[in-house]
Amino acid sequence: MTQNVYDHEEFFAAYSQMDRSLHGLAGAPEWPTLLAMLPSLDGQRVLDLGCGFGWFCRWAREQGAAAVTGIDVSERMLERARVDTDDPAIQYVREDLEHAQLPRGAFDLAYSSLALHYIDDLGRLLAEVRQALVPGGALVASVEHPLLLGPRRPGWNVDDDGNTSWLVDGYLDEGIRDAPWLGRRVIKHHRTIETYARLLREAGLTLTDLREWGVTDAWLRERPDQEHERERPYFLLFRATTSELEVSA
Amino acid sequence: MTQNVYDHEEFFAAYSQMDRSLHGLAGAPEWPTLLAMLPSLDGQRVLDLGCGFGWFCRWAREQGAAAVTGIDVSERMLERARVDTDDPAIQYVREDLEHAQLPRGAFDLAYSSLALHYIDDLGRLLAEVRQALVPGGALVASVEHPLLLGPRRPGWNVDDDGNTSWLVDGYLDEGIRDAPWLGRRVIKHHRTIETYARLLREAGLTLTDLREWGVTDAWLRERPDQEHERERPYFLLFRATTSELEVSA
Repeated sequence: MTQNVYDHEEFFAAYSQMDRSLHGLAGAPEWPTLLAMLPSLDGQRVLDLGCGFGWFCRWAREQGAAAVTGIDVSERMLERARVDTDDPAIQYVREDLEHAQLPRGAFDLAYSSLALHYIDDLGRLLAEVRQALVPGGALVASVEHPLLLGPRRPGWNVDDDGNTSWLVDGYLDEGIRDAPWLGRRVIKHHRTIETYARLLREAGLTLTDLREWGVTDAWLRERPDQEHERERPYFLLFRATTSELEVSA
Repeated sequence: MTQNVYDHEEFFAAYSQMDRSLHGLAGAPEWPTLLAMLPSLDGQRVLDLGCGFGWFCRWAREQGAAAVTGIDVSERMLERARVDTDDPAIQYVREDLEHAQLPRGAFDLAYSSLALHYIDDLGRLLAEVRQALVPGGALVASVEHPLLLGPRRPGWNVDDDGNTSWLVDGYLDEGIRDAPWLGRRVIKHHRTIETYARLLREAGLTLTDLREWGVTDAWLRERPDQEHERERPYFLLFRATTSELEVSA
């Protein structure tokens, strides 16, 4: 089973204080970019892989989604998600994405925010997503950028002139990275962009959009001590679609 | 016009001594990976963007290509290419890819090895390539990986334990990089992977394969002092195709 750090009491308490936990989508600086990659949700059946507190599920319904299913492994997060809605068209399911079975042709859109880098067998999950989507359906997802997650000895180097560089090693050496985050060692899986592209292709999904998100001027204005964040991409966002051709298959 | 460093006498002499100049495709360590991304060339009409000495053009004919057009801005390189073949099905054209006009629907495959990062207006060139390809045609290309080309202050950092990291800054800050190479300042254009993906999409090409090539064990066995090269990807390789659907359009 996937490490479920979110149900650890102190981690959960710390995570609950993050901007994206307190303010939802508006608290996630990459959200405007993800939003631009999403299709219209009006009348759509939506799946959220790693839904957490359910912010996206509720937002999708506000956009006219016909039905939304949110899946998460964290009981604590789903408890709060259920408290925050009484919408019968939103269904929350506790399941480990590492092993989840998804219904065939049941969704127009699959969405996943910062969850896929926790998955060991991502190829299996993407194949599940692929068969759960209707022809012409799409997956829109974000993960930590491999430049951020990949280094075995992550850190900043400041030269004699005060110029800051991000230290990159082990980019091509894929596998587990277990860095401390919010007081816990959190297990993530480093994959190159090549591997994300290959796993999507092998699952029968066509990569139609790829973004390397970096911090914005607005984000930096409130965090002037984080100027070095300009030097690297932070999140990798992508959209992949099933072929329209299968409509007639 | 694009900087034409290859026609500078000393640069040309130094470039001519590189493995890939002396030994052609076999001297390029990324060649086996590019080869695996190529379709069968039997009977195909092939375009080589930045053909240099014409190694790929001659190889394509050996594979059964019906006709091959090689384009390059370097007169010196084309002179030698013309000396090396008397095959009437290979045509060498001296043209600056920055401004080249390509015939409509004339090619099944466009190929480009380490040339596209010299182009300023890559969107224009990709649109030309797109319309020069038949429906179902493909572009297979390699460029310097943006992690290699992007840093404004490239270099290696060695920590107190002897661990080596590649210094990355300015990854998201696209534009000209003019680093010394073979004794000349060579002007290249740094683009993120996001931008390559976007330019292909905007040109009407679908990204169907993406590789982040890093040095191989075989390459390192002959260069034991280059172990640090394991820490970063070196070339970005991609394949993009026009839609098959247009056959009936």
